[in-house]
Amino acid sequence: LTVVGLGPGAEGWLAPAARAALADAQDIVGYRTYVALAGPFRGDQTLHVSDNREELQRARHALALAARGRTVAVVSSGDPGIFAMAAAVMEALDGAPKDVARAWHGVALSVVPGISAAQAAAARAGAPLGHDFCVLSLSDNLKPWDVIERRLALAASGDLVLALYNPASQARPHQFARALEIIREHRGPDTPVVIGRDVGRADESVRIVRLGDLTPDGVDMRTVLIVGSSTTRTLARADGGLWAYTPRSYATDAPP
Amino acid sequence: LTVVGLGPGAEGWLAPAARAALADAQDIVGYRTYVALAGPFRGDQTLHVSDNREELQRARHALALAARGRTVAVVSSGDPGIFAMAAAVMEALDGAPKDVARAWHGVALSVVPGISAAQAAAARAGAPLGHDFCVLSLSDNLKPWDVIERRLALAASGDLVLALYNPASQARPHQFARALEIIREHRGPDTPVVIGRDVGRADESVRIVRLGDLTPDGVDMRTVLIVGSSTTRTLARADGGLWAYTPRSYATDAPP
Repeated sequence: LTVVGLGPGAEGWLAPAARAALADAQDIVGYRTYVALAGPFRGDQTLHVSDNREELQRARHALALAARGRTVAVVSSGDPGIFAMAAAVMEALDGAPKDVARAWHGVALSVVPGISAAQAAAARAGAPLGHDFCVLSLSDNLKPWDVIERRLALAASGDLVLALYNPASQARPHQFARALEIIREHRGPDTPVVIGRDVGRADESVRIVRLGDLTPDGVDMRTVLIVGSSTTRTLARADGGLWAYTPRSYATDAPP
Repeated sequence: LTVVGLGPGAEGWLAPAARAALADAQDIVGYRTYVALAGPFRGDQTLHVSDNREELQRARHALALAARGRTVAVVSSGDPGIFAMAAAVMEALDGAPKDVARAWHGVALSVVPGISAAQAAAARAGAPLGHDFCVLSLSDNLKPWDVIERRLALAASGDLVLALYNPASQARPHQFARALEIIREHRGPDTPVVIGRDVGRADESVRIVRLGDLTPDGVDMRTVLIVGSSTTRTLARADGGLWAYTPRSYATDAPP
């Protein structure tokens, strides 16, 4: 059983080890959209697609297949180790029902890492993650909102760059507004913010805006936000756009 | 000019886009060890190798070559966007001397992301980065030590998993001891710690130890440490070792 990171979606960013694991697999297990992204597959490969948010059920299904001797790939977008399927597979294994625990624990298991969404957005934007940073999911599906607020405040007060996954959903627009409020207590309006959406796919977009100009428009669950620290800077690109980067050195106001 | 992430070193983790940029380049610029890792190169390609810690000089040299019309690849281990060459190239561009600024700003510049050391270690260990985490460098070469202490304390008090780069050098063993002291104020002795060293290379090692048992032995600048949060768990592997993972859900004592 291999948990395979597809990266953000671009062909050129898919690791050969991921490609090989997909080719070797008899069964491919994953969220419908990601299985489609990982294909095409051969006629002798069986696809097991499911809907989003069914990670644990999917992980159990994959372990059960592998315990029966099948060669299985669980696909995950980005890096399966970052807010994705690797943890779900570990949870399923840890919580294996008694009657199958022994068989599931006998499965040869490995994880192929991938480029995560924040790295893809950072690469397109310049180098906003060039110094210490924090990776937080703003979704309260799996943790209480007060924990999110507390972590945002701590990370912002430590002047860390913030890479924010799942920044806003239509179901909870007030939460994104509250998150911005917390960040703005610690960062000035000129702080550069990178808004990456579907980076590495056909409809990719990367924008760099001032924190003071950031609004919820165009920020959704397919977006990753990178909020700069006090040292993050922008500079003009040849094409008229902007680069954003965080210098490697901290605590200097002097230009590099 | 392309800033190319080599990933941790394993062939199978090198993105096709990185491979292509290396093949297209007329000039390859980088730290001696990484250029060797990125090769072999053709006879018509020129290698510009330099020592470690000369990032800015290397970045300037690369920009100067590219401004003269050469196709240049700057190589970086891991992800060039994370504590690596992408920020150095941006700094060099931002601080371009007046007489060359226009030419340097006209260079077509791109960044190819790669698998960073923490991701590689996490993949080998299971899924310790499966929930919110913080990425900090413990080196005080480029920032004051008190900033490092403060960030460690904030991230640890927020119960974030800690991915620690450059955790210890022989020149400053007392700093690593102090960092451990800060972490232990917030985490119990049973907290799982992943010690990854040269992951993805021939002499790779990955160990999982209790925070209470962590000592500076075998922790150096080629090591990445992942210190779990209060929810990070271990489970037995079929081969007798351990997996470490951080569940996607927070604030539950119940097994998954």
